[in-house]
Amino acid sequence: MDKDKPKTAITEIKPGSIRVKGYDITELMEKKSFAEVVFLLLKGELPNQAEAKMMEAVLVSSVDHGITPPSALATRVVASGGNPLNAAIAGGILTIGDSHGGAMEKCAKILQEWAVKGNDMKAIAEQLLAHIKSTGMRMPGFGHRLHRTDPRTVKMFEIAEKYDFSGKHIQLAKAVENKLTTSSGKKLPINVDGAIAAVMSDMGFDWRIGKGFFIISRCAGLVAHAYEELTRFKPMRKLGLTDYEYDGPREREVK
Amino acid sequence: MDKDKPKTAITEIKPGSIRVKGYDITELMEKKSFAEVVFLLLKGELPNQAEAKMMEAVLVSSVDHGITPPSALATRVVASGGNPLNAAIAGGILTIGDSHGGAMEKCAKILQEWAVKGNDMKAIAEQLLAHIKSTGMRMPGFGHRLHRTDPRTVKMFEIAEKYDFSGKHIQLAKAVENKLTTSSGKKLPINVDGAIAAVMSDMGFDWRIGKGFFIISRCAGLVAHAYEELTRFKPMRKLGLTDYEYDGPREREVK
Amino acid sequence: MDKDKPKTAITEIKPGSIRVKGYDITELMEKKSFAEVVFLLLKGELPNQAEAKMMEAVLVSSVDHGITPPSALATRVVASGGNPLNAAIAGGILTIGDSHGGAMEKCAKILQEWAVKGNDMKAIAEQLLAHIKSTGMRMPGFGHRLHRTDPRTVKMFEIAEKYDFSGKHIQLAKAVENKLTTSSGKKLPINVDGAIAAVMSDMGFDWRIGKGFFIISRCAGLVAHAYEELTRFKPMRKLGLTDYEYDGPREREVK
Amino acid sequence: MDKDKPKTAITEIKPGSIRVKGYDITELMEKKSFAEVVFLLLKGELPNQAEAKMMEAVLVSSVDHGITPPSALATRVVASGGNPLNAAIAGGILTIGDSHGGAMEKCAKILQEWAVKGNDMKAIAEQLLAHIKSTGMRMPGFGHRLHRTDPRTVKMFEIAEKYDFSGKHIQLAKAVENKLTTSSGKKLPINVDGAIAAVMSDMGFDWRIGKGFFIISRCAGLVAHAYEELTRFKPMRKLGLTDYEYDGPREREVK
Repeated sequence: MDKDKPKTAITEIKPGSIRVKGYDITELMEKKSFAEVVFLLLKGELPNQAEAKMMEAVLVSSVDHGITPPSALATRVVASGGNPLNAAIAGGILTIGDSHGGAMEKCAKILQEWAVKGNDMKAIAEQLLAHIKSTGMRMPGFGHRLHRTDPRTVKMFEIAEKYDFSGKHIQLAKAVENKLTTSSGKKLPINVDGAIAAVMSDMGFDWRIGKGFFIISRCAGLVAHAYEELTRFKPMRKLGLTDYEYDGPREREVK
Repeated sequence: MDKDKPKTAITEIKPGSIRVKGYDITELMEKKSFAEVVFLLLKGELPNQAEAKMMEAVLVSSVDHGITPPSALATRVVASGGNPLNAAIAGGILTIGDSHGGAMEKCAKILQEWAVKGNDMKAIAEQLLAHIKSTGMRMPGFGHRLHRTDPRTVKMFEIAEKYDFSGKHIQLAKAVENKLTTSSGKKLPINVDGAIAAVMSDMGFDWRIGKGFFIISRCAGLVAHAYEELTRFKPMRKLGLTDYEYDGPREREVK
Repeated sequence: MDKDKPKTAITEIKPGSIRVKGYDITELMEKKSFAEVVFLLLKGELPNQAEAKMMEAVLVSSVDHGITPPSALATRVVASGGNPLNAAIAGGILTIGDSHGGAMEKCAKILQEWAVKGNDMKAIAEQLLAHIKSTGMRMPGFGHRLHRTDPRTVKMFEIAEKYDFSGKHIQLAKAVENKLTTSSGKKLPINVDGAIAAVMSDMGFDWRIGKGFFIISRCAGLVAHAYEELTRFKPMRKLGLTDYEYDGPREREVK
Repeated sequence: MDKDKPKTAITEIKPGSIRVKGYDITELMEKKSFAEVVFLLLKGELPNQAEAKMMEAVLVSSVDHGITPPSALATRVVASGGNPLNAAIAGGILTIGDSHGGAMEKCAKILQEWAVKGNDMKAIAEQLLAHIKSTGMRMPGFGHRLHRTDPRTVKMFEIAEKYDFSGKHIQLAKAVENKLTTSSGKKLPINVDGAIAAVMSDMGFDWRIGKGFFIISRCAGLVAHAYEELTRFKPMRKLGLTDYEYDGPREREVK
């Protein structure tokens, strides 16, 4: 058994002082956004301007996807059993496993393993897809059961271009998409998981933390679902991934 | 049993379209920060500039408090048992109950119930404290076991002043602090839970969602703890709220 | 903060020795059933023969109720997201809150508070129901949305009679049932939650542990649901409390 | 997406009738023990007399191991944060991952894969250990950090012998233990995880359900820990895997 004093490199607490990765939390409160501090926490350094913008876009992109994902359903089922907000959110986050949000992690792993193999991303994409085909697997992070083109991916890469943020992993992801489309004759586009996988890889994050971005972002959506369930519906109602109706604010534009 | 089609007022999903509270998610990705979208999700409307700044500060203020809080310990214990990131975070969020983060909710409830009783916050604070004393309870959201003055509270109210953001709940909270200090002869300052309770009440949020701000914010810290545990330590090590050593980046300033 | 050495009165561990409430675990393995050891763990003493039989019946009665309860649904949703058995069971147990299994706890609390008021259970039942009516609440542990007469209750009380196990709480519960039926003109029978509440109260258990019996028992059912989900269905399938079909073993008798 | 009506082979519910694997639950309540019904739920058939006895012993053997295992710690940390019984148990069960209870599953997998290779268990044990050595892994289910000889294993195999319950998997496990001892010169005994793995394999259970036995059994211990924490200690106390004192009933014998 470990006899040493436990160590941590995250936050230092002293009476009257809280320092995250060396920075005084009050200075961060004053000068940085929440997304920038999330970047700091997970990477160890503050983001530059392009990274900060990408981080905001990544977190916003996954914040919610309606009531049908397993995480929203589980959150509502726990709340509906007569439980507090924290238990409901925990139930929702529990669902975010290999099959729900896991593509982000798996796609980032593959991109990080293959992007280092050279500079010709088109050639690497071909080898990568040939390898995946030989294993009988499918490429994670591509295709979506509902969206033909994932609007979040399109916007994510548009923002990346605008901020001049793009590295080998985004290039490889795009090369894979092109090759998949050419081979199959139909579009198999990068979905939001794949886009985030590429962006976080270009930011230099370890693929093992991939699901973390999704968990932090979706956590906010789950709070909204738990709150709606607790305040709008009766306990123990019939819940399920059936048809539903949206009755919130109508379509409007950000001014 | 409910035979009606389930309803939700949060997010509308159609093929190729995701709208949060009526706004296209790609527009939000482009123009808004994550904290602003969290505000939108929980309030139904986008924040104005002062509210947006306060929201960033609230979320940053609670993002982490080292390895000793129950949420960080539980996250590490679950990770240490050989479990994935999502299970570890869920374990941490589970701990955020009446005694860990609950002060935020309880303090907001009291501020919201009493601030409507008039305009003289000094007088209301006196009645409120007399009432609480008569019930044998303590005022939640005041005092901290480690910090004599909570630096996060000081900064939070400083930012509020700078952005001209202050309403009856912040005023009432300050009046309560003054009265507590006068009565007891020693300072019993507003802690970060109390400060967030006052700020969110002035933003117009229902106290029932109080713990939600803390959960969303701390979720990011828990991802950092789970990741550190999974990548830096062996499974099943001896864990506990004992003494520990910080070995991360040294003190530095935000440039 | 507590500086004392932590204490526990449950199990003593030494190299080569494990003693639960003072008994060597190997002796318990040899001579006692699991249900008897559960009784020991929660009560501090081993049950007599009648208590042992009641304990077996209580645990068997709640072991499963098909795929529609929130606990089974949440277990399956977590499993379906691509998560291990333990996470799925945890998700299911999370749902067992005030509205799902909570009646057991609330009913036991009421029975324990009123049964001490005298010996005439018929009179006490009348006062109890008048009091509950005056608060606008309903008596927990009575009525079932599916079963007109809960077959588990009938059997539970039949076994209690056979083993000569019955005390004031069972008598009070029956008096409440009679009074409810007389007043309303229609049968509002004790359900399995109410029956367990009465039985555990007659065994001398604190109502605060009420949900514990349900959790231990249903935990076994949830393992079956998680295992079926993981081995029989594809991840991320559409799940909900909709109509379903049973395709297991046909009706048969215990030989 | 699955359009078919969902199916389940576990329990059939109709008004006034609950049938587990085809058996009326009231008949099970009357004639069977809880452990026998757990066997039925997970196997699909009722156990014979020897299997029933082994099942009781398996469930009793893992019911608790004091306050130091991660599951007990997490349960107490969640309870200590001011949360209900169900959330505390869920937190504890979450910890039961690859490194805590996982040996049971892994050991059962290995025993089931190798026991079919022939009838000479001594020879198979040698090949098995040579193979494991070549992979650089260690044999799961052998050795214990505290107990030199695990008293639960000794008793488990004693009961198996008494009830004439033993098959190829128990024989293989014993052959592995002998070979490990001969090779290393020091005793590396089967621990309780390994013993349960062997017993459940001889009962014909799929190794994938291995952790399920541990979860059902330990769930009862976790209820005891949560209840002790909630009723005996103040919220937010300092918790950890440090030294502790047992102050429950003194050593005594089962009469």
